[in-house]
Amino acid sequence: MTLRSVDAKQMESLRKMIPEDRFSTGDSVLNLHSRDQSFHPPSRPDVVIWPILKEEVCAVLKYADENRIPVTGWGSGTSMEGNPIPVKGGIVLDFSRMNRILQIREQDFQADLEPGVIYQDLNERLRHKGLFFPPDPGARATIGGMIGNNASGTRTVKYGSTRDYVLRLTMALASGELIETGTRASKTSSGYDLVRLFVGSEGTLGLVVEATVRLAGVPSEYGAAVVTFPSLNAAGKCVFEIKRSGLDPAALELMDPECIGLMNREKGLGLSVLPTLFMEYHGPSSHQLAETIKVVKEICVDTGCTGFNAGFGRGERDRLFRARHELGEMILRNHPGCGVLVVDVAVPATAYPDMIAAVKEEMKKGGVTGYIFSHAGDGNLHVNLVGKREDQDGWRRIHTVADRTVAGALASGGTATGEHGVGIGKRKFMEAEHGKSLRWMKKIKTLFDPNGILNPGKMFPYNDDFLQLTR
Amino acid sequence: MTLRSVDAKQMESLRKMIPEDRFSTGDSVLNLHSRDQSFHPPSRPDVVIWPILKEEVCAVLKYADENRIPVTGWGSGTSMEGNPIPVKGGIVLDFSRMNRILQIREQDFQADLEPGVIYQDLNERLRHKGLFFPPDPGARATIGGMIGNNASGTRTVKYGSTRDYVLRLTMALASGELIETGTRASKTSSGYDLVRLFVGSEGTLGLVVEATVRLAGVPSEYGAAVVTFPSLNAAGKCVFEIKRSGLDPAALELMDPECIGLMNREKGLGLSVLPTLFMEYHGPSSHQLAETIKVVKEICVDTGCTGFNAGFGRGERDRLFRARHELGEMILRNHPGCGVLVVDVAVPATAYPDMIAAVKEEMKKGGVTGYIFSHAGDGNLHVNLVGKREDQDGWRRIHTVADRTVAGALASGGTATGEHGVGIGKRKFMEAEHGKSLRWMKKIKTLFDPNGILNPGKMFPYNDDFLQLTR
Repeated sequence: MTLRSVDAKQMESLRKMIPEDRFSTGDSVLNLHSRDQSFHPPSRPDVVIWPILKEEVCAVLKYADENRIPVTGWGSGTSMEGNPIPVKGGIVLDFSRMNRILQIREQDFQADLEPGVIYQDLNERLRHKGLFFPPDPGARATIGGMIGNNASGTRTVKYGSTRDYVLRLTMALASGELIETGTRASKTSSGYDLVRLFVGSEGTLGLVVEATVRLAGVPSEYGAAVVTFPSLNAAGKCVFEIKRSGLDPAALELMDPECIGLMNREKGLGLSVLPTLFMEYHGPSSHQLAETIKVVKEICVDTGCTGFNAGFGRGERDRLFRARHELGEMILRNHPGCGVLVVDVAVPATAYPDMIAAVKEEMKKGGVTGYIFSHAGDGNLHVNLVGKREDQDGWRRIHTVADRTVAGALASGGTATGEHGVGIGKRKFMEAEHGKSLRWMKKIKTLFDPNGILNPGKMFPYNDDFLQLTR
Repeated sequence: MTLRSVDAKQMESLRKMIPEDRFSTGDSVLNLHSRDQSFHPPSRPDVVIWPILKEEVCAVLKYADENRIPVTGWGSGTSMEGNPIPVKGGIVLDFSRMNRILQIREQDFQADLEPGVIYQDLNERLRHKGLFFPPDPGARATIGGMIGNNASGTRTVKYGSTRDYVLRLTMALASGELIETGTRASKTSSGYDLVRLFVGSEGTLGLVVEATVRLAGVPSEYGAAVVTFPSLNAAGKCVFEIKRSGLDPAALELMDPECIGLMNREKGLGLSVLPTLFMEYHGPSSHQLAETIKVVKEICVDTGCTGFNAGFGRGERDRLFRARHELGEMILRNHPGCGVLVVDVAVPATAYPDMIAAVKEEMKKGGVTGYIFSHAGDGNLHVNLVGKREDQDGWRRIHTVADRTVAGALASGGTATGEHGVGIGKRKFMEAEHGKSLRWMKKIKTLFDPNGILNPGKMFPYNDDFLQLTR
């Protein structure tokens, strides 16, 4: 039995399950749920449903499974790789109204959340408790979406990815079954780690309907440093020495001169237009932090920095990092009529400088404009490749640069995606990255979702005929 | 088809696969592989094989799978919950000779290892490179065993568990198939996280034949503090405030007065016989570390400590932590003719003081002698319950204390095992801890090991008839 669109009779059945104000087949709603923040082409669902109860999610899934209707979870649509685009139509479950912070257990450093909670809103609520949820993908992402994509960001070098902050999940499975997995203890060796199997599975194994996440203490003191280098290589060496020193930076971001130029122009930062590291350090007291920064400076000087500025107040630090977070938007604004393909790969530390050199070379060869800014401390490289929307030849060249960058990352032992997930764009690399273990991923998919209704057309390289590959 | 012992004909077939000097059915060898460091009763395998090649592991597995012979992996036999005891007989694959450090990629903070590498030997090799492998279960455990049990220890509060240090695995599956999974990049969002599915699966889904692990930079400076409190409750409050402060202790261990008394007696430490925290901090410079310790002291004083001593040189610090690591052996030595049941549970931070009070109460009620020492920073409680080997009634009371402690941990949202794994002893709690998700763990087990040959009789609460529960 293959997957099907929702027919008129089925639409009536679904309509009876959900109150009218949380059910829509309206054009604008379908359009809004046809694309994320990526360059991937839009694809509309047949219907959008906003559940607010676990039981509603289960009922819709059970019905969809029985009728072979695709179901795709939706957070806030800020994914970067087409992850939530309903490429086979069907039902989109939009979790944005299932967004209660159920409980903050301050003394346990934990919070129980519905999947639609926006992580910045959670952090706003936590502010006065001296706690925060560290993963920070930047966009206004939901917790459910972050879990789906194993999202991460600038703070991951110190604090880890979303994967490291999920303790417990309640999952609605394809059949409509509800299971709880994980523990409220901060460590466990009990049974198979289903929590981490679900994290990063992009809604293809089940849908998160509740999560218990770990929180961290807000550091008493923050310190930032902006450090310039004569070459990307020198900056790369500095990244290595800082990591080896045990200094534990809370952010270690590398920007190429093109990015610095853009940030200067838009935000008047007045930085030297050179390869630049933005660093952040956290500490329990200003004296301790001052000692940390001293050691940082020594290392930067030893590795040949040409400029070191660490005398920032909190406001100035916020301004710098806000500019860093807005780079994606700045690039779009500065190239009117253009689209952007965001490359996201991660490689071992030693492969990092060569990777940057190679992508620069590919851009030059292909005549492609691009901006390199990256979570250097994690070996996670982003390149935003820019092209006129209608320039088909240009986009062919952009895709060539992107594909060669991913191929290069894999050849160096790295991964096709550091934090954006597989979605649509990285499916074609899955066989190359995972080899025979991809078959086992597929078997797990088939175990949890035998009819293939959950976010079909994602994660695996096989196209329309999901079931064809079920061996 | 049920599992079978190795018959004479099969023994001959197996003998042909492996050179004579790495194949044994000798009594002393079988006895050595019949027990780990736990109180669980011994059970002998039919044969012990020491593979040195992946291909040998695969060949044995393929033959065993076709003939329904149990296969149990063996590291160094230091597990604490009967995890590697071959309760159904069959073949033990002892990985102690497959113990090469294949490559240390210093600049990537990574090492490629065979499963039989002892983690202390790895750290010895890494010493002059300024790197180390942080998880430290204490005993001379192998990397393969640590991956099997998701081992952790005193440094986990800062550095995490084994799970957090495994980047890439080569696994031999039950059928003899070899798969590689994971990446050498330090982060990834690519595909399902099979690596973390295998970590902690106690050799029931496949056997590790190669691993790439993450390493950390050795901190320039270490600082220890020994802090005494008038009550366990006050010590618990201090643990919470330290964690909230962002001070990031590298060890945060709680010992009850009974443990301190023992350590004083055996090691002449001269500590006050009170609830005591052992802490360790790491820093990039002595000045920075001194500032850290200042903040630590303030918090300890604020939470009511009665003694604070942080003026240790490296030698003294090593002496303190060595005494801490030897507590298990000291307890055995001081109770001749006795056995020890080691309770290992983990609970949310707020449940920790009550948990300690409850276990003390249970020991008192049952007339059971016990020692409490624990990874307080992780909410991970160990209680070593001591009883005369022949005192059957005493052991019944010991088991009652242990079972009630686990039940209490689960009732507070915690886990039946923080770091020792399920093995034999925690199987009975799996249904209570995991509910319906246990069925999904079982389905995954059946997917990877349809004939149930891998470490049978472990992990799941179902006893002899493994296949009976395969639904």
